This record gives sequence, structure tokens and C-alpha cells, in this order.
Amino acid sequence: MCGIIGFTGYTEAKKVLIDGLTALEYRGYDSAGIAFYQQGSIKTIKTTGKVSILADKVAALKIPDEEGSSCGIGHTRWATHGGVTDTNAHPHTAGKVTLIHNGIIENYRELEIRLKEEGRTPVSQTDTEIAALLLDSLYEGDALKAIRQAVELIEGAYAFCIIFADQPEVIYSLRNSSPLVACHAKEGSIIASDMVALIDYSKDYFVVPEMHVVTLTKKKITLTDLDGNQVCPRMLHVNWDMTAAKKGGYPHFMLKEIHEQPDSLRNTILPRIQNKLPDFTADNIPDSLFDGITRIVITACGTAMHAGLIGRAMLEKLLRLPVTVEVASEFRYQDPIIDKNTLVITISQSGETADTLAALKLSRERGASTLSIVNVKGSSIARESDYVLYTHAGPEIAVASTKAYTAQLACLYLLAFRFGFATGKLEKEVCMDEMQQLLSIIPAVEETLAQDKVIEEISKQLTEKEDLFFIGRGLDYALSCEGSIKLKEISYIHSEAYAAGELKHGTLSLVTEGVPVVALATQQKVYSKMISNIREVKARNAFVILITIDGQEAEPSIYDYHISLPEIKDDYAPFLAAVVLQLLAYYTSLHRGLNVDQPRNLAKSVTVE
Amino acid sequence: MCGIIGFTGYTEAKKVLIDGLTALEYRGYDSAGIAFYQQGSIKTIKTTGKVSILADKVAALKIPDEEGSSCGIGHTRWATHGGVTDTNAHPHTAGKVTLIHNGIIENYRELEIRLKEEGRTPVSQTDTEIAALLLDSLYEGDALKAIRQAVELIEGAYAFCIIFADQPEVIYSLRNSSPLVACHAKEGSIIASDMVALIDYSKDYFVVPEMHVVTLTKKKITLTDLDGNQVCPRMLHVNWDMTAAKKGGYPHFMLKEIHEQPDSLRNTILPRIQNKLPDFTADNIPDSLFDGITRIVITACGTAMHAGLIGRAMLEKLLRLPVTVEVASEFRYQDPIIDKNTLVITISQSGETADTLAALKLSRERGASTLSIVNVKGSSIARESDYVLYTHAGPEIAVASTKAYTAQLACLYLLAFRFGFATGKLEKEVCMDEMQQLLSIIPAVEETLAQDKVIEEISKQLTEKEDLFFIGRGLDYALSCEGSIKLKEISYIHSEAYAAGELKHGTLSLVTEGVPVVALATQQKVYSKMISNIREVKARNAFVILITIDGQEAEPSIYDYHISLPEIKDDYAPFLAAVVLQLLAYYTSLHRGLNVDQPRNLAKSVTVE
Repeated sequence: MCGIIGFTGYTEAKKVLIDGLTALEYRGYDSAGIAFYQQGSIKTIKTTGKVSILADKVAALKIPDEEGSSCGIGHTRWATHGGVTDTNAHPHTAGKVTLIHNGIIENYRELEIRLKEEGRTPVSQTDTEIAALLLDSLYEGDALKAIRQAVELIEGAYAFCIIFADQPEVIYSLRNSSPLVACHAKEGSIIASDMVALIDYSKDYFVVPEMHVVTLTKKKITLTDLDGNQVCPRMLHVNWDMTAAKKGGYPHFMLKEIHEQPDSLRNTILPRIQNKLPDFTADNIPDSLFDGITRIVITACGTAMHAGLIGRAMLEKLLRLPVTVEVASEFRYQDPIIDKNTLVITISQSGETADTLAALKLSRERGASTLSIVNVKGSSIARESDYVLYTHAGPEIAVASTKAYTAQLACLYLLAFRFGFATGKLEKEVCMDEMQQLLSIIPAVEETLAQDKVIEEISKQLTEKEDLFFIGRGLDYALSCEGSIKLKEISYIHSEAYAAGELKHGTLSLVTEGVPVVALATQQKVYSKMISNIREVKARNAFVILITIDGQEAEPSIYDYHISLPEIKDDYAPFLAAVVLQLLAYYTSLHRGLNVDQPRNLAKSVTVE
Repeated sequence: MCGIIGFTGYTEAKKVLIDGLTALEYRGYDSAGIAFYQQGSIKTIKTTGKVSILADKVAALKIPDEEGSSCGIGHTRWATHGGVTDTNAHPHTAGKVTLIHNGIIENYRELEIRLKEEGRTPVSQTDTEIAALLLDSLYEGDALKAIRQAVELIEGAYAFCIIFADQPEVIYSLRNSSPLVACHAKEGSIIASDMVALIDYSKDYFVVPEMHVVTLTKKKITLTDLDGNQVCPRMLHVNWDMTAAKKGGYPHFMLKEIHEQPDSLRNTILPRIQNKLPDFTADNIPDSLFDGITRIVITACGTAMHAGLIGRAMLEKLLRLPVTVEVASEFRYQDPIIDKNTLVITISQSGETADTLAALKLSRERGASTLSIVNVKGSSIARESDYVLYTHAGPEIAVASTKAYTAQLACLYLLAFRFGFATGKLEKEVCMDEMQQLLSIIPAVEETLAQDKVIEEISKQLTEKEDLFFIGRGLDYALSCEGSIKLKEISYIHSEAYAAGELKHGTLSLVTEGVPVVALATQQKVYSKMISNIREVKARNAFVILITIDGQEAEPSIYDYHISLPEIKDDYAPFLAAVVLQLLAYYTSLHRGLNVDQPRNLAKSVTVE
């Protein structure tokens, strides 16, 4: 995580940097800082807390805008090494070198020992300062040479922006794994962790290739490989503008994004229908993808992994192939059993999730076919995959993912239908019927969103609670996992999801008088079993919020609140129930007075391990 | 769950019943009750709370011991339908019928409607009373006929003991799924949910076959099928006695069982070694078991499922076959992809876990090979499996499983070694070396147990906490799941296990100043990654309890307490770390003043869904 930005051009750097950091703040908000050339030397201003605090601090200093202050770097931090302090905030300076960093330097202890022997001692607890000290020790006036030497010594994931005291108006940049995009506009040259910091200046940009050095001057951007050969960047164009990344009248990005789900589902599903059947021609995904495939592995992190749990059920049901869902950070280190007969599906909103990207690379090395479900075009995961099925959810800014999740589900359903049909396991008429059902979720989601106020009322019962359980069976269990993380990450209530039948193997000891249990009972085929489990918690006087499908009778004695979803078949209920759980999380956080869009300690787009 | 007992014989029934219920109390302790013939009619005494409260209530009534009071039934309840009240306690009476029940009647609503139409209205909220009302409506003097008719109408899992007002000194009993064992001794005839209630009277017993009616009189036990044909029971012999099921000087069963682990591991491993190689000749498990097997599915519940997570890693590593671990309550309803090329391994201490048993039956129906790892001889799961590998852990009484878990791990390792060797994937010398390593865990566990006092001291830091996280990678993550459920079930602290790399995808928002994080870092191959994750929580000022292997350096700045385990290879560390986590849970519960052996709401041997 962490957001980084560098700018050199024809206008005041401070403003460009702080505007950019504000857009990048979703990537981390433990501390923020900028460094820029001012009257021939480098000035650094940094602080713990959010970018707005930094902006106030900069404003209070009343630094005059002047010629020569149009080059600088900025950073918003998500703490990995070292606590949240002013000293640990970026930029870090050592001698002639000032730099910012996103990622983790794994061998920083080794490097630290080596540097201390040379009499160079860090003042902070960060791995980043070690990089600055190292670079300064190697720098003898040739920046590219020093960077090349440093790269040989540093292990880990990183993106750096570096300025040298004796090279005013030039920024050097380099990445390994951690994302970086750059563009040249009439205002000058800009580089940042994400397109959102660039889009006010240009819609044409390039993704910095790994292990290439970017040299930014106000006139141009030069890209060279580590041997010093100049490389031509591959330009991309973004087709949304900044208004899509603004709140548009909603009090929070999260609420806006929840309400955008009918649109994002429409945009994701409709372009993939031809003659009432799912169709991936435009996505360049051939029907031969499943030739020889005997197993599917879905690997992802967090919410995307939870989408995979639902996808697993659909793919197993329709393709009759064993599917496993693996947490990417575990998968990549467990010597997984994958070969050319395995299809590995990776899912990531940002397309930059470090563990998922590594899992994908490992899968390719072992000869697996790879397909990714990604929201951000041209992102690393999209580029590294054999095939990409894009979710057309538009930019997602709130840290808690909502519309990306349901769009990921839609992609997984489309995959199951297309390949169920293509492999002859799903008859044409049945496939068409399933597609009709899938389309019917769009109005059903709209109808569910209309229950907004009912859900807000219920959420008021949760604001004083500190523990909560989500239970369900089958798809409801998979969805419980997502409902729990959603509530937990923004309300700080310790919620936990459990397979309803598993509760009595330990966790039931925490279910006592008044403990809220969100019971998902949307699956008709296990309804009576689920009701038995709800009785078990009600026998302990739990506070039960029951979610069922319209028309399903439920005895009032087993619940305290009841939310009824539009009538829909078992397989499609997760789309509707997801909306309920998102709203429940949103309003609970809101009524607890918390920062819904930027929960503490978290960041969107997890680009460190 | 629930414990049931029936006795008819030559001695006072009240004492036999209450002694039996005391032994069965691990199966549930929400309420207890007995019913017995007294002066020609049936007398029922019941109460919420534990068996000791029932015993006091019975004693206070000063009922004279007299001829004719030597037949009765007793029940200790784990609530499923209806809250914990005196009225909902068993036995339940309707007209001439008094009965006790273990299990869940799924169609009780339907039956209730039907009975109400006949003017029969229940006074409690239990499904059990419905069974009593139904049976009374069918009873016209012929007990067997009425039972047969009732069986046609009742859906669900059950074990019943029934007495009729006009048939003194006779007990009828019947089971479907829920366990029942019976024996005839010089004191009379006894039937109960578990052998522990019988062993004071006889070591020879039989398991009641499903859907057979048992008729107990003081002179003999008769077994008939539902067509009325007499059936000869298959007698079994138990080779432990009651002292093995007593505390033996320890303040709690749990602490005793933790300390028994060197013995239980020895008993489980040693008989399976021949010529320094793992050997299953005496277990009748042939090397051909893996012929044609392309996939392994491990299915289980709770702690046994957590053992499966570790087993998965070992089996995948050594056999290079894909292994999935499935929660049994989910697996049985998800139309799993299994066929004759799948080996399904079920794991259960009691061998009676309802969901695991159902998963096993489903697997057999679909043609899979089945192997079970079970502690209780002759239990349902053992009988239903193609092959059984018994854990020789001896009786486990504490609800929180400890020695059964590590013995299950040992069995899974033995399986991986034997079949790694048998399939040619593991060379003979390497296999012998692994067996040596496995044996070396026995003294290493002893050494770990010696850290008892250190761990007790650390646990004092946790007594005031209400939330806690366990993190790890690889085997440490699998073990974290078990450590978390152990602490949670007996201390009521809301603990949760997380793959260390997954924490930042949401849960990290709950990690703030002083929140305890138990960080397992026993796996050398991911040590530096794990340390990075610990830094992430320490950057938020978490209270870190670090567990590493001896000799592994750890900077004091990243932990508050550090427990170092005897030096051992990565694969074997779970045995040692498990002991630490068990002791941590035990002492935390103890210092919170809780009932360690019988945590609220839970029961051992989960025989309902």
C-alpha cells in the first residue's frame, strides 16, 4: 500500500503533490509528507495523520510560490515497518538523497548492519530510510549507476521516487512489484501509484515496467532498462474521468458505490450476451480454454477471495470439476499442486494485489492456464494473465469493496454458464434460462436497495455491540464471510462468519443473551437445517437478524428482526443478500461515528505482502 | 448432544441414573431430569442447570428407596429447540408416555399442527414433547406397534428411551443416527448415549443398530428390527476402565489430557512402526488403498477439521495429490464431486459426530474409498468406513479436545509417510528419517509441557481481554485455527485466526493498542514474511505473544512475550505449538474463573446437525 507521487513541471509542485495525495489517500493514511526543491535546496514537510493535516501544516508555513519550487515528491503512508510517528513518515533523507517508498524491503536488517559498519546510522525505524542511506552511500554523481547498484542489493517489493540534492528538477523512479504509472502533460511530468492522481492532467499514461528506471524532467519522461538501454513505454488510455471518482451527492463513496451496483452489474453482464447466451468473443476468451482442464484453483485475497467462494459453488455445480479456493498469501508459499491441466483464476479489483500477482506468476511458471477477473484495465494482474475478464464496475474508491464484489460474482457466474454450455454440461435452453435469471438480479438489486431505510433502522441496534456472528449454509456461508469482513473493517465490531452447522463446535460458547447473530436463510434446499441452527442460537437468547427470501415463512419466535429479499432462486440470492450486508455495515459504521470510507489501519489495493 | 440413560434392574434406579448422568454430563448441561416408577406410577424430577443441581433436588425430596423404584430414565440436555427452562427439560410426558430424546425432529412443526387438530397441545417449546404426544396418540397397549408407527412419521435424528405408565419396569429404546449403547450386568439392564455410563457395571456392551427397537427388562435385553424380527446384538469389549476417565490428581480433565499427550502420541505411533517404517498391517489398511486415487477429501467438524488442515499440507507435500478439507456440515449438502478415484478421510474423536457420519455415508454412496481416524472403538464412523486408523488417545472427557487432536495429527502424518513410501514418492531412507523425526516429537512435547508455568504467567495478561487474534503462515495458520477455537470455547474471549498475509484485507482495523496477537512463527521457510506481518501489527501497538523455534533470533521490539519451542523441523512444529496454545487456553479460562471442562452452551460429541 502507501500512495506515492512525483511531479516536475511548470507549476507549483506543492499543490500538485497535495492534490495527488488526497486522491491517493485510500492507499494509506497513517502519515503523509512532501519534499520539494526550494531556493536550491530540498525542503521536507511531514506529519502523522491524514493528508488534510499535512495540507494545513504546509499552508501554515506560508511558503511563497516561486520559480524553482515546481519539482517534488509526496507520500501517504500505510505503516509496515515502524510505528506511526512523524520520524517514520516519508520522505526520508540521507545525505544527498531524499526518497519515498511503497513496499517492504525484506533484507533491511542485513543492509542496516552493513551501513552501520560504514558509520551510517538511521534515525527512524523504517526500512525506507535504509534504502536512502544505501543509495547515498553509492551515489557519486551518477544517479542511474547508484540506482543500478542499489537494486542489486535490495530484496523485496518496492516503488521509489528519488530526488538528489545536486540534481534539481529531476525525479528518478523505479519499481519492483509495487505499482507505478506515469504521464506527461502540459503541466509537466507526473508519476504516481495510481491513475487517480494523474487523471486531472491527462488520460494517456503508461504503466512503468518492472525493473526499469524512469527519469522525469519538466520536458519529458525517459525510460531505461537496468543496462541503460532506452525503452519506449506502451501508452494506455483511460475512459473514465474524475467525476466517476467523486461522490456525486452521496455522503460517502461507499454508499455511492453500493447504489451503483445495478449499473455496474448491467455494464458487466450486458456486453457478454449474444443471442441470449453468454459470450466472451469480445474478451478474447476462447471456448477451448477448458480443453483438458481437470481442476480449477481460484486464488485471491480478502473480498475477492470471498467472491471466489461463491464462484466455487457455481463452477463445481455446472462444470462438475473440483474447485479449490486458496488465500493467495498462503497459496504462493505452499508448493501448490498445479500443472497444465489446472485453470487458475485470480480475482482482484485493483489488479495490483501483491500476493495475488505472485500467485498468478507462480501458476504460470508451473504451466497452468490463467484467467483473471480484474477491474482496473492494464493493471499488473491483467497483463500477466493468459485471459482477462474485466469487471466493468468503474473506479472503486471506498476501502470497503462493494460494487467490485458483486461484479466479480457476475463474472464468475458468466464463466460458469459459458463453459458449462461450451463443454456440453449445460443445455442451451437451460443456459439461456440461467442468463435470464442472471439479468433478473439487476431489478432485484434495485428493489433490495429500496430497503435502505429498513436496514438503517436495524443497524441502530448494532451500534453498541462489540461482537457479532454471521451464520449460513452453502452460498449463505460464503456470503457470510463477506458480510462479516465488511462489517468488521468499517465498524470495528468484532464479527465472525461461521458455517451454521459448525457453530456448535466451539463458537457457540460466545453466543449469549443479546449477542447479535445475522442469520442468512436464503437457500431453500437447506432451509430446515438452517432454521434448526437458528433455534440453537435463539435457545441461548441471541439477538437474531434473519434474512430470507420473500414468501418463506419464518416463526416470529426465532428472530428479532426479519429482512425479506425479492423472490429469487437459491443461486442468485447472494447478489441481493450482499446488498443487505453492505448497507448493514455502512449504517452501523455511520451510526458509530466512524470514517466509513477510510477505516483505520487499512488501505485499498494491498501492494505489500 | 444430550446424554440419555435408561436402567431397569435390581437396585435403586435414582442412584444409577444420576451417576450415569454425571458421567454423561460432557454431552450437555443446560438442564437435567429423571423419571422413574414409584409406587406404581411415574415420578418425574427435572431442573435447569447441571446434574449436581438435579441430585440435590432429588436428595431434598427424601424419596424412600423401595421395591418397584428400580426402573427409570434420565437425561442431561444440550438445548436445540426451545430455551433453557424447567419446562423444556426432559423427560417429557404425554398421557401414558414418558420419554427422553437426543437429536432433532425436523418435521416437528408439521406433527404439531396435526396433533393440535386432534386436540393435543404441547406445554413446552421442544420438539421432544411432540414425539411424546405423537406416541401417546398411537399407543393402544402395544408399545412396539406404536413405536413402529411413530417411526414412519418422524423425520430427523434421534435416540429415545421411552417408558409407558402401564408397563412398569420395561424401557423401550430406539435410535436413528444418535448414538446408543447397552449392556446387561448383574445389577440389571442399562442403555445410554455413551459407554462411560455403563463401564461401572460391565465392560461388555453392544452398539444399538439404527432403526432397531431395544426392549429392556431387569432380566434381559431384547433387540428387534422394525418388522418385529429378533436380532442378535454384536458384543464389544472395552479395554480401559473408569480410572482412565477420572481426573487422576489434576484439577481438571483438560489439564490431565494435555499432560497425557506424550503417552497418547506414543500409543498412537509406536504400534505402527515395523523395521523403522510406518506399517498398517495390524490396522488392516492395505498399500493398495491409494491405487487409482487422484484426489483426497478430508471432511470433519471443529477441532478434527483443524487437524485435517495440517493433514492436508502433509499429504499434498508427500503424495503430490490435491487435497481439500471440507467442513462436514457444508460438504454433505453441496453435491460434492467425489467418485471411486477419491479417497475421503473422515476424522472424529467420538466417531459419532452427526455431520461427519452423514458426509461419510454420502461419500460411500458415491463410490469413494473411505478411511476414518477415530478415537472411540466400534463407533458409528468407525463401523461405516472402509478402513479405520484409530487414535489411541484413551477417553477424552473435557469438552475442549487436546490429546485427541495431536493423536489425529500423528495418524495423518503416519498416513502421509506410509503412502508416500508405498506409492514410491518417498524414498525408504527418507521415510525412515521422517519416522525418526515423528518419534522425536514425544520428548519434545514433554519438554514443551515443562514450560507450563511460563505459559500460565503469560495467560494472566489475557484474562481481562475480550478480543484476540492468532496469526500464522502455512502450518502455523492451520494451527492458529485450532489455537483460536481452543481459547474461544473455554475462555469466551472472542478470538479469531487469520492467515498472517490476509490480516490487512480487513481485520487489521481491529488491531489497536494492546489488542493481543498470538503470532506463530515456527516455519523457517516463511519466517521473514511472518516477521513483516508481525511488524504490521506492532506498528499498531498490538500486544504480541511470539512463538518461535529455539535458535531463531527475534528482535525484542516486535514482541511483548516470547515463547521458544525445542528445536525441530518445520513440519513437526505443530505438535509443540499445539501444546503451548492448549495451555494458554487452559490457564486463561482458569484465571477468568470459568468452568474449564464444561464451557457454556457446548457439549462433546456433537450428535445433532
